[in-house]
Amino acid sequence: MRSHRKELWFETPERRGYVNITADVATEVRVSGVQEGLCLVNAMHITASVYINDDEPGLLHDYDQWLEGLAPHAPTAKYHHNRTGEDNADAHLKRQVMGREVVVAITRGALDLGPWEQVFYAEFDGRRRKRVLVKIIGE
Amino acid sequence: MRSHRKELWFETPERRGYVNITADVATEVRVSGVQEGLCLVNAMHITASVYINDDEPGLLHDYDQWLEGLAPHAPTAKYHHNRTGEDNADAHLKRQVMGREVVVAITRGALDLGPWEQVFYAEFDGRRRKRVLVKIIGE
Amino acid sequence: MRSHRKELWFETPERRGYVNITADVATEVRVSGVQEGLCLVNAMHITASVYINDDEPGLLHDYDQWLEGLAPHAPTAKYHHNRTGEDNADAHLKRQVMGREVVVAITRGALDLGPWEQVFYAEFDGRRRKRVLVKIIGE
Repeated sequence: MRSHRKELWFETPERRGYVNITADVATEVRVSGVQEGLCLVNAMHITASVYINDDEPGLLHDYDQWLEGLAPHAPTAKYHHNRTGEDNADAHLKRQVMGREVVVAITRGALDLGPWEQVFYAEFDGRRRKRVLVKIIGE
Repeated sequence: MRSHRKELWFETPERRGYVNITADVATEVRVSGVQEGLCLVNAMHITASVYINDDEPGLLHDYDQWLEGLAPHAPTAKYHHNRTGEDNADAHLKRQVMGREVVVAITRGALDLGPWEQVFYAEFDGRRRKRVLVKIIGE
Repeated sequence: MRSHRKELWFETPERRGYVNITADVATEVRVSGVQEGLCLVNAMHITASVYINDDEPGLLHDYDQWLEGLAPHAPTAKYHHNRTGEDNADAHLKRQVMGREVVVAITRGALDLGPWEQVFYAEFDGRRRKRVLVKIIGE
């Protein structure tokens, strides 16, 4: 069995941001040399997500509006978590809707994705350096 | 290490639908010959989900009503994604709530599921042929 | 390839509860002897979740309030699932928001977690014994 591990680093300029990381993940699959296996991609921070969906600017806008509706940032005082001195409770909630991780099949040495599947890093509490883990196992 | 790959195809007659695919996935585990491993089952389309829950008609009704409340189909014009000519922005949102994929343990050659766990394909923009990927690795 | 399987049992005293199971999962990784691989942790019951986020009491309070807002327990009669004699339809909904499972990388014989990542069992229909499955594969 082969395995490969890589940390990807991101710093979004705004509190929230959506970054297409498909090419970065595909590079790690090539580097791993794995032909058949699984590729785990997860946020290492608990106010960010890794998810798979369309790379379409209108949709990214819709996700952002929708998540803000489901888990509003303000008023920050309504969240008990923010009594710790944080103002990011909403980010912990938004991340649960979008998910922590994706697991993608590797087939014949490449990510086995559907036609429109793109891997995204979603940031809900940005403006600082944060990490995504890529872990590959297979043969 | 063994690996096995299979695409399952579905076409639901309505826009939304919920299909129990547990038996199809179990068949692929048997075909794979894997005794101990992991089975990834993911929607290959970004307006559909694979999830695990109960096969109970009342619950499927409740999921459908609840998701329509969280991410309504109409008015379609409120979603920027629909300016591309699509009318399925809500399907991209609903799919995030229900998830893209499940990873199920394989133990002694079979899906290692709890007593009520059933694998479902959830369609949020149907009436056309769409795929689910089953990828199995193990020994 | 090595594999390891363990069931963890929980009984929360209230209907809803949040239990940090990181140490239990880490123990199974050590027992498995796997140095490089993947660790699947999933609820075996369909009214509970396994998720990764912060172990901070204020945040657990916020999750609980937020989930009750998104999928209220009462009035129980509004859910068709509850016509089966159950009163836990809301638990099936809440579990979808928080997710069924996590997949965690194993690197150099340990869980490869970010600085604040903690594995939680979330119970939405407790007061009875329920199980979590830990399945580890790797080398």
